[in-house]
Amino acid sequence: MRLRRIPGTKEALTRYPDLVVFEPVRYYGCWKTYFGQEHPIYLELGMGKGKFISTMAGENPQINFIGMEFREEMVYKAIGKAGESRSNMRFLWAEADDVEEYFAPGEIQRIYLNFSDPWPKKRHGKRRLTHQKFLKKYKHILFPGGEIHFKTDNQELFEFSLNEFAGEGFFLKNITFDLHRSQYPGNITTEYEERYRQERPIYRCEAALIDHSQI
Amino acid sequence: MRLRRIPGTKEALTRYPDLVVFEPVRYYGCWKTYFGQEHPIYLELGMGKGKFISTMAGENPQINFIGMEFREEMVYKAIGKAGESRSNMRFLWAEADDVEEYFAPGEIQRIYLNFSDPWPKKRHGKRRLTHQKFLKKYKHILFPGGEIHFKTDNQELFEFSLNEFAGEGFFLKNITFDLHRSQYPGNITTEYEERYRQERPIYRCEAALIDHSQI
Repeated sequence: MRLRRIPGTKEALTRYPDLVVFEPVRYYGCWKTYFGQEHPIYLELGMGKGKFISTMAGENPQINFIGMEFREEMVYKAIGKAGESRSNMRFLWAEADDVEEYFAPGEIQRIYLNFSDPWPKKRHGKRRLTHQKFLKKYKHILFPGGEIHFKTDNQELFEFSLNEFAGEGFFLKNITFDLHRSQYPGNITTEYEERYRQERPIYRCEAALIDHSQI
Repeated sequence: MRLRRIPGTKEALTRYPDLVVFEPVRYYGCWKTYFGQEHPIYLELGMGKGKFISTMAGENPQINFIGMEFREEMVYKAIGKAGESRSNMRFLWAEADDVEEYFAPGEIQRIYLNFSDPWPKKRHGKRRLTHQKFLKKYKHILFPGGEIHFKTDNQELFEFSLNEFAGEGFFLKNITFDLHRSQYPGNITTEYEERYRQERPIYRCEAALIDHSQI
């Protein structure tokens, strides 16, 4: 979604130091220390307005949630959605491309990708957040046995993503071609999902990093 | 497809001992000896009229092909389709349910499931050839690293099957939601596929048995 630029948004973000992390590289390898407890860390890439991650953080106090988003206006809206700061939730105004700079190998237990931009043109394929270029980065920061939970309403992106996951050695599971028909338990919707769920099916899958020590 | 019963078909099959194997249990564990060479064995379950397997056997002399089909009229049609006997192809008039009686552990390198009956009613789910009940049997006869290649035009069956594969620990890859659009190289069509390929998309995937010795 193209957003209207609002002058002063970046500065506004600095007023919420309890929610927005400004120098994520500082916490590389020590995010659990930063959060103050040893709970696993779940990362949403492209959190948009933050409904999903705010709801998840509220319902799962035993998990630390980090939402990343590179559009500052979206981060600002997510702050509004969050209502108040939560000890188990932080936002990063940052690019998914740089995840390896922010997180140490194995530091993340799960990654959420919700309705990522499909970049339908072939020449833009490398921008898709499930392109192998990104998956290689995710593999570095994911804990062994960690998972990527992916949902989209774009069939082409879903098909592309399944094969990118497979190509990078992820084990695919819990695949659905119509999330709301399948009544997946505990589905937390995003703003986008709420808006379009009646119009078209939503595809979802989980891609697990094989934990070789468990085989 | 419901077939008209043709009296005498069973007896007719016995006239083709070079193509039809009548006592498959006799070759349990020694199919390569029976074929007379050490080539890998690929098995098609539910070969129908046999276009797929006959074409595959003609194009791949370095592979031994076995087509299984429980409807004797179909086996008879497949004999006609085969034209002549091939040293690398045999038909079994038999049920997929009994594969473990015919093949020893690890004896089969690849299994093809082409347009298997979708059995759409939930109470018939156990009859689907990708039901976990069947997958457990296939796992026993498949060689480590062996694969199941599956195609169907039924989206519900495809979705069901992906999850059954995943549930049984198969590694999913080469997934397509529209086989003919994707221009998968070397696709050999079945009779059914030729008939319906213009009307609806064909789904395809490969499910590989993880070879733990290779990890």
